[in-house]
Amino acid sequence: MKINVMTDILEANDRLAASSNEMFKKNRNLVLNLMSSPGAGKTSLLEKTAELLKGKLRLGVIAGDIETARDAERLEKHKIPAVQLTTGSACHLDANMVASALPYIDLKKIDVLVIENVGNLVCPAEFKVGEDYKIMILSVTEGDEKPLKYPLMFRESSLLLINKIDLLKYTNFNLKEAKANARRVHPDLEIIEISCVTGEGLDEWIAWLNQHYQKKFGAKTRT
Amino acid sequence: MKINVMTDILEANDRLAASSNEMFKKNRNLVLNLMSSPGAGKTSLLEKTAELLKGKLRLGVIAGDIETARDAERLEKHKIPAVQLTTGSACHLDANMVASALPYIDLKKIDVLVIENVGNLVCPAEFKVGEDYKIMILSVTEGDEKPLKYPLMFRESSLLLINKIDLLKYTNFNLKEAKANARRVHPDLEIIEISCVTGEGLDEWIAWLNQHYQKKFGAKTRT
Repeated sequence: MKINVMTDILEANDRLAASSNEMFKKNRNLVLNLMSSPGAGKTSLLEKTAELLKGKLRLGVIAGDIETARDAERLEKHKIPAVQLTTGSACHLDANMVASALPYIDLKKIDVLVIENVGNLVCPAEFKVGEDYKIMILSVTEGDEKPLKYPLMFRESSLLLINKIDLLKYTNFNLKEAKANARRVHPDLEIIEISCVTGEGLDEWIAWLNQHYQKKFGAKTRT
Repeated sequence: MKINVMTDILEANDRLAASSNEMFKKNRNLVLNLMSSPGAGKTSLLEKTAELLKGKLRLGVIAGDIETARDAERLEKHKIPAVQLTTGSACHLDANMVASALPYIDLKKIDVLVIENVGNLVCPAEFKVGEDYKIMILSVTEGDEKPLKYPLMFRESSLLLINKIDLLKYTNFNLKEAKANARRVHPDLEIIEISCVTGEGLDEWIAWLNQHYQKKFGAKTRT
């Protein structure tokens, strides 16, 4: 008998992810699995997002890192409810790790729950954690060929945020080429260019959030 | 009976890595396992390195990526003998993958063999591939707290190259803090600041290579 260990692991993971997703739905949470390389700007984006959503949608975060609680601490300074998961050596979050964080966060007080994955362009894309959408950040300092080298993450994501657009002029990153590469591996991929320094593109990102919250719950804000 | 699968895997990997390392020694290759996040500048560094080593030490590269042969193609344009390993879904190289590339590269014509790992700050640090030294690149666009979040790679590396130093003024990266963080997890870590755009620090990097080649083989160049 041949046992495919990886298939078994992924099936068990997906069952748990589906059950978490049900719970999120009952609590009226739009849930996003946010992925990127280390340092692409996930936490900075969340700080800006909380500011821009103020009075509209309430943000909450489960942040995954190998070590340290720095991200959760940064977010808490911005009054964002945040739970830090330290994975020890795991290079990605899975459904079980995320489920273990849920007792520590009040889902009823959150509209948009972002699961900030471990910084890694490879493995996070393989594991569902209960999200409605996977979204990813690529920063312009990383290179425009990344969609071809790390296709799975670009294929699995519903939205690509191209970040640090303010640094574009100091790099050899070709924006047109990057988008073409991304759409080569995922033809329908939505793409928004942003800068958390200048604020460029953030209105479009907030509109995306509102639109997807409305799509899931049929209302612009929690009533 | 409890089987620790991970320990077994790592032991088998280390045995093969030690055997590759013996072969590299016989062929008079200084072997470096080069690791970083995606887009930190591994391939650009190797292009520059080949230029600067010309007439002194001969560079060869085994490049690992999930998909595409772009890195090997870039290196071959610079006349660097290069073999591309595409890992499919594996987020790191291991000793077996690297051993599988060896029939395709003429080790007798190489002095410094760089094994360019998959772009990932986590798993590559766990697997020996036959190297004499692990070295890593951190680019200033990634953030100065990375040593604390991804300590294993910084702990395992003999040398840290802080790259894209030309972009320092456009970021909030604190160089002093980054070095302090790196030395908090690895007190003896050697650190060189470089830019592959301006050339800053590359002489120091080349000196490091010469010094470590000499340390291993007792000669400045192959005789």
